[in-house]
Amino acid sequence: MSSYGSSVRVAEASRVAIFGGTHGNEMSGVTLVNLWVKNSAEIQRKRVETKPFITNPKAVEKCSRYVDTDLNRAFTPENLRYTRHTAGNVSAPAGDELPYEVQRAQEINRIFGPKGSPEAYDVVFDLHNTTSNMGCTLILESSKDHFNLQMMNYIKKAIAPASCLVLLNEHPLLKYSTSRSVAKHPVGLEVGPQPQGVLRSNIFEAMRVILKHALDFIELFNEGMEFPTCTVEVFRVLDRIDYPRDANGNIIAMVHPNLQDCDWEPLNPGDPMFQSFDGKTIRYQGLGTVFPTFINEAAYYEKQQAFVTTRREALVASAIRKV
Amino acid sequence: MSSYGSSVRVAEASRVAIFGGTHGNEMSGVTLVNLWVKNSAEIQRKRVETKPFITNPKAVEKCSRYVDTDLNRAFTPENLRYTRHTAGNVSAPAGDELPYEVQRAQEINRIFGPKGSPEAYDVVFDLHNTTSNMGCTLILESSKDHFNLQMMNYIKKAIAPASCLVLLNEHPLLKYSTSRSVAKHPVGLEVGPQPQGVLRSNIFEAMRVILKHALDFIELFNEGMEFPTCTVEVFRVLDRIDYPRDANGNIIAMVHPNLQDCDWEPLNPGDPMFQSFDGKTIRYQGLGTVFPTFINEAAYYEKQQAFVTTRREALVASAIRKV
Repeated sequence: MSSYGSSVRVAEASRVAIFGGTHGNEMSGVTLVNLWVKNSAEIQRKRVETKPFITNPKAVEKCSRYVDTDLNRAFTPENLRYTRHTAGNVSAPAGDELPYEVQRAQEINRIFGPKGSPEAYDVVFDLHNTTSNMGCTLILESSKDHFNLQMMNYIKKAIAPASCLVLLNEHPLLKYSTSRSVAKHPVGLEVGPQPQGVLRSNIFEAMRVILKHALDFIELFNEGMEFPTCTVEVFRVLDRIDYPRDANGNIIAMVHPNLQDCDWEPLNPGDPMFQSFDGKTIRYQGLGTVFPTFINEAAYYEKQQAFVTTRREALVASAIRKV
Repeated sequence: MSSYGSSVRVAEASRVAIFGGTHGNEMSGVTLVNLWVKNSAEIQRKRVETKPFITNPKAVEKCSRYVDTDLNRAFTPENLRYTRHTAGNVSAPAGDELPYEVQRAQEINRIFGPKGSPEAYDVVFDLHNTTSNMGCTLILESSKDHFNLQMMNYIKKAIAPASCLVLLNEHPLLKYSTSRSVAKHPVGLEVGPQPQGVLRSNIFEAMRVILKHALDFIELFNEGMEFPTCTVEVFRVLDRIDYPRDANGNIIAMVHPNLQDCDWEPLNPGDPMFQSFDGKTIRYQGLGTVFPTFINEAAYYEKQQAFVTTRREALVASAIRKV
């Protein structure tokens, strides 16, 4: 990425991947990617090679989130560094002893990365579902990624009046090492609400439409279209809120009915947040208004997270144009 | 059960169990039973011993439906007969080689059964959640069980104007060997929609209220109240409908948006039923109107079931009174 005249110049996005099954029980991405592996006509665009890819086939087979460990937290420097040490030594016995998802992370990094290198794929879309009432959500990993900001702005305008929000996670402690992070421009897509192991037609179609517009954007960009500077509303991850627990760590309250399904709506100091099993209301004690999301996501009970709080911000995306 | 004067005489229901965690990821029952194990004041009634019990603790620990096989299909004569052969021989090595849920079924049958015997518990409530939009549903295993019919009539009237429907499964092929079937009067309770692994306050409270009224009924019955003859609307299981599949058994369509979430609403010949991934509508071809339920239940993909069809019937419950 370099500045030239009024536009930031960004390299052509010629290699794009679409990941499904990073969590094996999130069925919209699993189903779409499996369809596109059989027939990729729908995701092909001029000047782009788009590769649909099931990232965690064993978890998909079991219809579970993961086998040994969460693949979408496995792309750490420690896990991936191992790849380089053993490069060319595929029979190293240590490899087989690693958790399945760490082995997969290394393999995915070899195919679509290496992460952080010039050889990495340009864009990876990673398709997720959530049990939370989040609607269509694009997840952005860096507020400095003007290519992704422009893409997200394009998608938001293309699907209006339907809504697609942007969650920005560059929190120093809460950001995690995602599958998509192998790419230069990682894009997470969360669509919900959908139970684990279920495929709902409305969620499936919503995800499919977002992908269509995302690929259209890449095609236009690669053809040389300039995208003028714009402002993108994002929700920046602030904090993780756990369920209330007793001294033994057991959960003693549920998300309050006033908060349940109210992802992206303002939560003000004093608003009900949890309801204990004996009927008491536990209120939000923060200093100011926040916007909760990932409210009551099934997979986050084990991560001690009832929801995350966010702050609404306007990010300015520079004008961009192909190098 | 014997007839005397105008009322059928039924034995006092002095031993009652409440099962949670028959499926380890159905969180309302797991949570309620765990609460009641700690403090059972809420479920105690005069003249009744009520025992809360987690049926599949390993599955609860893993937050999965089951470990080896579905516990709620495991109470077959074959599985339970084994118990008698090895009675008194607890160190028999064959026992450990059985699937975990078969071992549990035998243990549960020893504690709460034996199934079909005079020693069996009087009533077992088995608490389930579904991803389907079924609301509160009581599951009845026999149209001849006048005690259960009277109980269900009582619950329906007690919670009105809220709704609680009755699903009757005595289908010769589709009826299965449930955990609750160890009792003289087995009662299934399904409440949804709730994703697997999630606890929603509205679903939790709805289940809790149903149990309250059920136990109130048992107390009144045990105190000698006569329940006059009544008519109970039930939905009788007719048929299982699978997802459309290709020659390799892969699913090629989703529940149609017009049918999704429309449990208990009439499905007429010609109505949309599925939507294929390439956008085609597949219509219901039956001869008459049916009432679908368990629509798009997560756990039934592996059972080749997109939904079941039912027929609406009015069952007459005899007047009952304690022996």
